[in-house]
Amino acid sequence: MVRLKEIANLCGVSEGTASKALRGKFGVNELTRQRVVSVASRYNYVPNHVVHAIQTGRTMTVGIACNDFANEFSGLILSGVLRRLFQDNYAGIIISWDLSVHEGERLLLNLAERRVDGILMFPPADTPSEAHLSELRAVHGPVVVIDQIWRGCPYDFVGSDDLHGAAAVTEHLIQLGHRRIANLHYSQVSSGRERMEGFRQAMFKHGVAIHDRWLREIPRYEHEGDAAYDRARELLSMEDRPSALVCFNDHVAVQAMAAAVDLGIRVPQELSVAGFADLTIAQRVRPRLTTVAQDPLNIGTQTAELMLERLQQQRNGDGKDSKRRLLLPTRLVVRDSTAQAPSPQ
Amino acid sequence: MVRLKEIANLCGVSEGTASKALRGKFGVNELTRQRVVSVASRYNYVPNHVVHAIQTGRTMTVGIACNDFANEFSGLILSGVLRRLFQDNYAGIIISWDLSVHEGERLLLNLAERRVDGILMFPPADTPSEAHLSELRAVHGPVVVIDQIWRGCPYDFVGSDDLHGAAAVTEHLIQLGHRRIANLHYSQVSSGRERMEGFRQAMFKHGVAIHDRWLREIPRYEHEGDAAYDRARELLSMEDRPSALVCFNDHVAVQAMAAAVDLGIRVPQELSVAGFADLTIAQRVRPRLTTVAQDPLNIGTQTAELMLERLQQQRNGDGKDSKRRLLLPTRLVVRDSTAQAPSPQ
Repeated sequence: MVRLKEIANLCGVSEGTASKALRGKFGVNELTRQRVVSVASRYNYVPNHVVHAIQTGRTMTVGIACNDFANEFSGLILSGVLRRLFQDNYAGIIISWDLSVHEGERLLLNLAERRVDGILMFPPADTPSEAHLSELRAVHGPVVVIDQIWRGCPYDFVGSDDLHGAAAVTEHLIQLGHRRIANLHYSQVSSGRERMEGFRQAMFKHGVAIHDRWLREIPRYEHEGDAAYDRARELLSMEDRPSALVCFNDHVAVQAMAAAVDLGIRVPQELSVAGFADLTIAQRVRPRLTTVAQDPLNIGTQTAELMLERLQQQRNGDGKDSKRRLLLPTRLVVRDSTAQAPSPQ
Repeated sequence: MVRLKEIANLCGVSEGTASKALRGKFGVNELTRQRVVSVASRYNYVPNHVVHAIQTGRTMTVGIACNDFANEFSGLILSGVLRRLFQDNYAGIIISWDLSVHEGERLLLNLAERRVDGILMFPPADTPSEAHLSELRAVHGPVVVIDQIWRGCPYDFVGSDDLHGAAAVTEHLIQLGHRRIANLHYSQVSSGRERMEGFRQAMFKHGVAIHDRWLREIPRYEHEGDAAYDRARELLSMEDRPSALVCFNDHVAVQAMAAAVDLGIRVPQELSVAGFADLTIAQRVRPRLTTVAQDPLNIGTQTAELMLERLQQQRNGDGKDSKRRLLLPTRLVVRDSTAQAPSPQ
């Protein structure tokens, strides 16, 4: 690989002049600039970001701590993040929370060692440990938290308006005449707690009783395992089973529909099922799933935007304004998995 | 953030000695070493990888060029890659092909500028352009290509044994008595062409005729859009419709099952449907999907393993042995979406 020094020698100028010429800086004669650019191009010279990082103290990288790759939702957030960062010449170094907790800790330290300019973080499902938080503080740049937040989180946050989304889908079911409404929830994450709160508020507002026996906590919601299926099947095997199921997300809803099929319960004639997220599968299953659309691509874009703004403030030495909490709007999408409640309710 | 120089000053040693002490190198008095380590720990000193990169000429990063994040399959490959890289203290810088082609080209150059030690590449669906290949050559380290390969590819490759997987699922259908077998294929990628070849070989071996009218090319197979649904619906609306559908992957199979439901055709009584990949959804849909399991996590691990081996060879100055082609085995998984052929065939 040809080096800057060689380009400079070939042009008969100093390395400093060659560097200035390639970066389009002032103080270089136009003819010299053109010669350097032309020689650099002929020899396929590739500027060295590592040297640039030493010179400027900025690596132009943002660390991204993820908890789940194999997921359309976080994948779209990542796409949005990387696209926006790239526009400003930042690259993303991605680490994965799904390693063991101990390794997860070393991972954050690894980002600090690599002198990332800032960190974007999908938190692990529960509150980060004190060790994690202490490692985060070793990063001198801004931190923005994505999708899930924890109590007392001292960082900027970008997520979804889970509360109003859950309230909207609950009201939709109430308006269809449902009174026997169950909830398959996931309270280990903030979005799950917000969705539960939205559900409660809508039920209270319309004077519909919440029955504890129809509330089921899912221990883990992710792809593998059948926890959501098992909880749904328990609910639907009850003698006084509910007529509608509000589900933590589309993955859970698809499993609930499978449980209904396996028990010979027809959706939506005998049971309405609603999801959350509007993943691709929501349009692919039959019946098509009623759900609450989130906007993961835009969550990613907004997250990166906020990071870039914070980095700019840091460079300008601006006093930091207070922490931001961006909740992107959600939207009820009615499809075929919800229908008029069977009578009597 | 405390710097190495300050640690050295506090200990009354030179920066070189402090650096050696922290890296556990020889030539440092044991008491001195302990003092430096203790002071560094007290002040939360974080070693600087950027300086290390300049000193060693290695950034300990591997560039990863992806074409689709929002996908369980590539997400699991990425997880496998990052886990294995991390064990050897490498980080992954991820860039995304799903930007426009022009930006995609700048992205590869961006990795070269960041002096990644090597590149792992999910190729764009078709053959990389000459511009892409020329940028790849600007990277001095090894390149390993993942999942899809192109004719004349000069790099190592890790993928799946698509041919035998497709042959196995086709034989499974033939053994169930099917003779009217359609194929929803995707020939823009090497795995799609290999699967088609496996299908042809199995049909030929068993003397079952392939009818052109039952072969449908899917223009794009990804999440968005209904191309696969439309092709499946066309096939299933024919007067002499097939009794079995071999699908490029599980996404396509789920759409084919939806088309069957919408046309009132019962799966598997009137139509058998088979997928490829064994994504989570294969177990979640009803009927559960018969498919060919791949092993994306292991594809990721093997890819990273090969990269680390190549990097080691490069450091040792070993002559490169010839290009490797790893095809990880696939496995037929029979579930409920395939059954005895309806008579008459």
